[in-house]
Amino acid sequence: MSIKFEGNEFDLIRYIKERTVESGRNLESAVLGIGDDAAIFKGFEGFGAISTDMLVEGVDFDLTWADPYSLGVKSLEVSLSDIAAMGSTPRYSLLSVALPSKVLTNDFLSNFIDGYLFSAERSGVLLIGGDLSRITGPLVIDSTVIGSAEHKGVRRSGAKKGDGIFVSGRLGGASAGLEILMTGEQSSQVESPLLERQLRPTARVSLGRLLGQSPNVSSMIDVSDGLLGDLGHVLDASGLGAQLDLRALPLEDGISELIESGRLTGRLLPDNPVGISLAQWFAMTGGEDFELLFTASSDFEFNRLSELTGQAITKIGVITEESGLIRTDIKGQNAVLPKISHTHF
Amino acid sequence: MSIKFEGNEFDLIRYIKERTVESGRNLESAVLGIGDDAAIFKGFEGFGAISTDMLVEGVDFDLTWADPYSLGVKSLEVSLSDIAAMGSTPRYSLLSVALPSKVLTNDFLSNFIDGYLFSAERSGVLLIGGDLSRITGPLVIDSTVIGSAEHKGVRRSGAKKGDGIFVSGRLGGASAGLEILMTGEQSSQVESPLLERQLRPTARVSLGRLLGQSPNVSSMIDVSDGLLGDLGHVLDASGLGAQLDLRALPLEDGISELIESGRLTGRLLPDNPVGISLAQWFAMTGGEDFELLFTASSDFEFNRLSELTGQAITKIGVITEESGLIRTDIKGQNAVLPKISHTHF
Repeated sequence: MSIKFEGNEFDLIRYIKERTVESGRNLESAVLGIGDDAAIFKGFEGFGAISTDMLVEGVDFDLTWADPYSLGVKSLEVSLSDIAAMGSTPRYSLLSVALPSKVLTNDFLSNFIDGYLFSAERSGVLLIGGDLSRITGPLVIDSTVIGSAEHKGVRRSGAKKGDGIFVSGRLGGASAGLEILMTGEQSSQVESPLLERQLRPTARVSLGRLLGQSPNVSSMIDVSDGLLGDLGHVLDASGLGAQLDLRALPLEDGISELIESGRLTGRLLPDNPVGISLAQWFAMTGGEDFELLFTASSDFEFNRLSELTGQAITKIGVITEESGLIRTDIKGQNAVLPKISHTHF
Repeated sequence: MSIKFEGNEFDLIRYIKERTVESGRNLESAVLGIGDDAAIFKGFEGFGAISTDMLVEGVDFDLTWADPYSLGVKSLEVSLSDIAAMGSTPRYSLLSVALPSKVLTNDFLSNFIDGYLFSAERSGVLLIGGDLSRITGPLVIDSTVIGSAEHKGVRRSGAKKGDGIFVSGRLGGASAGLEILMTGEQSSQVESPLLERQLRPTARVSLGRLLGQSPNVSSMIDVSDGLLGDLGHVLDASGLGAQLDLRALPLEDGISELIESGRLTGRLLPDNPVGISLAQWFAMTGGEDFELLFTASSDFEFNRLSELTGQAITKIGVITEESGLIRTDIKGQNAVLPKISHTHF
């Protein structure tokens, strides 16, 4: 590697700057990138969206199982997911890191930055600034993404009675992956994609932007706290309820098999008070899948959008007028589900 | 106090949101504030500026001497200062905090937020989003400010040979305050304003905006690393040198007196290799004064701008063509000064 990090703040900033340029992107679309008091970007018409996420070692990740490259990817994807959930197009990012001395190695830092820049390139985002500090304590990462859109954002509050409830991709994988990572044992071929969901999530950036442009989509959120929790946020903001079809839930591959073999026990999930199957409970309460959960009117052509983006979209229920209540059929009985959130702290 | 913080992430977000609204500002100018996946703001013509600063307990502040209200003020001011140094107008802010359990008290959090919002109101900035996490370790604060301007930012790289070198306000106070705070003894009337400079800095927001609009101003930076270090950044970026007039340096009141009485020893400052007086060394190397250091052509009417803003502006030198060299007269001898930076880590 030709670019070396040699140990003080200014060297590290130069190092990241060079890696940013080296990564094949130029700064043409940003007016001024890393290295002045603030980054300058071209103003835009319409509306900006901005989101920031803080990841703390020991709370959001553990360096015994999170490798630096994956951590770089995830640091950006969590914020990209928020921008996607507003239906906005991500454009610029800022990265602030408090570095404990144990991570001040060439290997750790270059892998971390490589992961971050991989994620940035994949989503067409430019790293334009940030801050670095030392810390006597855990590694702390704060990533900020600025997006833009022609609209004022697809809010949580826009759901309408009778709207379908949709979710992208498959659910439960990230929390299943976390449980496997925390057992610390060697993982199998079935388990690897689940670990990937936890370690290197992929925000639904293109899908989010397209959903933001659809006049049929009434509300949206990303699944970071778990389906029940995030649907709860939408219902609370919209003053409405939901009827879920449990059988429709798009469960991540491998979870049922690993539950049967005893490998997954759901020990990290919240209590399951209504007797839902463990596999479904992973899909309903596992956090950090970073799929998009949205509501849309009945004439929404979700199959077409699914084909266009290559992203599965599943209708999992309908919005009702029972404010705040999530109902479902469990073994022929209509039951009320708790709006459980995977609380981040 | 009618709004109480009761202990989980969502309560705390609600608490901050209510304090934001309560603080007398409404969210009219921001389209959507705290509480969705991302904050939405109106796009703007011209150019955006964005800066983020991370403050880490034990590195940037110590809770044995930094009270929560001041810490709230400073958390925002450090980022405001970067936006001011680009000549931009600050508009929106984001606040991310990793909270150790020791600060999860009503008193700490409400005072911290009050300080932050005081600073936000003073500068016409709206807190529109952020993130909260717990941490087992030090308190970590990351504050981001977005500004806007008609221009592409007053860079560090624009200085021209023959330009005057100017600085706002008075220098050395923040580092003198830090030394006093770290002695831990009761402070006197002379010392209080110095403590204030360290604990509750005031970014030069109005002055920065006006300097950004002046066609005479060629480069600008804020004094956060110390005058010699920050001037060094300007010279490096501009490929030029400087001749400083030490006698012109606007030294903060009280420093000379406290040096004479033995109260200030400069023990936190970098080594002084060229025999400059300790009072001047405070002004030249003490960090965190958050004054504006800028260069301007000879027809710049700095007295008029000083009157308009009520802010002292002092000419302290001139830009030369000796790339990278800072020269000055010391006791009749022409000496080269080191481009020493107060490194933040």
